Amino acid sequence: MFRDKIKVFDCTIRDGGLINNHRFDHRFVREVYKALSEAGVDYMEIGYKNSKTLFSSEEFGAWKFCDDEDIKRVMDGVDSKTKLSIMVDVGRVDINDIKPRKESPVAMIRVASYVKDIDKAIFLVNHFAEKGYETTVNIMAISRALDNELNEALHQLEAESRAMVVYIVDSFGALYQETTEFLIKKAKGILKTKEVGMHAHNNQQLAFGNTIEAIIHNANYVDGTVYGLGRAAGNCPLELLIGFLKNPKFDIRPILDLISNEFIPLREKIEWGYIIPYAITGMFDEHPKAAMELRNSNKKENYREFYESIKGADMD
Amino acid sequence: MFRDKIKVFDCTIRDGGLINNHRFDHRFVREVYKALSEAGVDYMEIGYKNSKTLFSSEEFGAWKFCDDEDIKRVMDGVDSKTKLSIMVDVGRVDINDIKPRKESPVAMIRVASYVKDIDKAIFLVNHFAEKGYETTVNIMAISRALDNELNEALHQLEAESRAMVVYIVDSFGALYQETTEFLIKKAKGILKTKEVGMHAHNNQQLAFGNTIEAIIHNANYVDGTVYGLGRAAGNCPLELLIGFLKNPKFDIRPILDLISNEFIPLREKIEWGYIIPYAITGMFDEHPKAAMELRNSNKKENYREFYESIKGADMD
Repeated sequence: MFRDKIKVFDCTIRDGGLINNHRFDHRFVREVYKALSEAGVDYMEIGYKNSKTLFSSEEFGAWKFCDDEDIKRVMDGVDSKTKLSIMVDVGRVDINDIKPRKESPVAMIRVASYVKDIDKAIFLVNHFAEKGYETTVNIMAISRALDNELNEALHQLEAESRAMVVYIVDSFGALYQETTEFLIKKAKGILKTKEVGMHAHNNQQLAFGNTIEAIIHNANYVDGTVYGLGRAAGNCPLELLIGFLKNPKFDIRPILDLISNEFIPLREKIEWGYIIPYAITGMFDEHPKAAMELRNSNKKENYREFYESIKGADMD
Repeated sequence: MFRDKIKVFDCTIRDGGLINNHRFDHRFVREVYKALSEAGVDYMEIGYKNSKTLFSSEEFGAWKFCDDEDIKRVMDGVDSKTKLSIMVDVGRVDINDIKPRKESPVAMIRVASYVKDIDKAIFLVNHFAEKGYETTVNIMAISRALDNELNEALHQLEAESRAMVVYIVDSFGALYQETTEFLIKKAKGILKTKEVGMHAHNNQQLAFGNTIEAIIHNANYVDGTVYGLGRAAGNCPLELLIGFLKNPKFDIRPILDLISNEFIPLREKIEWGYIIPYAITGMFDEHPKAAMELRNSNKKENYREFYESIKGADMD
């Protein structure tokens, strides 16, 4: 697949930070930034911009807040065309923390929102666009969105927002290809002036397949993470995405080195990927929270009991 | 997805045997058979029928030969509707070893063949049909087949063979959804009197996605293995397939127990699954042999060098 417009967006540190309270050290983050830069990846999302009045900087690491000084420690001296992004959640950002684009090391701000919060997301995204940033709105938990409400949100985003890109986010790893096709076609049909993106979770080993499906139906922004790192089952593996895309600007080899040197050892310390309880929450279109609790308990391989509990909750 | 005609075919012991020279003990194989039977899986492939004049029964375990006594030790006393299958490779079976169906514990024989050997495969499959078995021809390494030769093979299978089912086998885990769709549609178009099957490998985490793709385009025989067990990257995980199919005859819970009790411990002893060198051979449409050798060497995480060697070989 070669389509010049396709942008590869890495969110290794941002999504991976959900496993370890954003406590990646600066050396590790810099290694990721260097490798992505050498590989020709278009964007790297480095963390969240959360208000320090809401979260403690003792409990959470640097990438929960993304202060400019932390970002600059990662970037300084690295030759790179990779643009940096930060994510904000509706209700957790203080817009006064966001400087104008030209005073910031960040090029893009992505707003994560549920369908019900779309008005707040549009306010935020327009504010960030006003300050000079590239912007996206990422519609989370799309597998739970009611069709009429999603339609209305997409029409509002088209008419009222300055978002460059609108993402379909399969937060629960619940989508199969047919629904991915349906959602991407719907979004492309309504969002005449914007690009469409895909962010997939890997609960059922479908993150890469669904991302290809989105590309086939003209999504041009596609998210991945190195070795699939990310909360619970993780994400679409960036290395597979780069192997699939035929654009010669990409070079997979720095990503392979990064996996050998950093991610194989990391996987010994923190857990993510294809693990049965995450597959089960994906099958039932549920948040992985209960599965994450199970994996931290002494019943972590007790799949039948977990299945019954999720199935029971689903029927209540 | 609910379609009554879809048959779920487990090949855990047969494909998994390629990792350990078919040395699963009878207790383990019986546990798999019991769980598949309780889960309502349609077929279980228990191994290969190879001639003992070609392979040593000291070097290989029972499931390389599938003697009736071994099969009966697994089956005896288990209440089951799951049919048993064995696989034969063109050139490695002595047809005199195959008894008439009514004297055998086996219901189905699958013939694995490359496109170039299709005449030999048709001879074998017709011989086994004559003896009363259900039969399939599994076309291996389909990602390397030339289009005109594949067309001719499919027309021959339709006109000359008594195979019930013809399988598309993505031996190298190289297919993406678009080519899967192309191949399944082609097979369905030519094989008017037969069913089409899909056997996918998981090098690029696409085995399940490609199997769904095949189902969408009317393949009705789909292969999986418990927890994806199988040579190198392994296969389509059976538990995901059963989670996807909505036929109430299937029950995922015995498979979950089997994974908890048998496959989590097994994964500590033998290796399969998403491992970067297997992803690389998949990307280059190569046999995983070189990657398997790498994993048995002291350079097993040296991905860049391996990538360069595969890329170089591909260009020679």
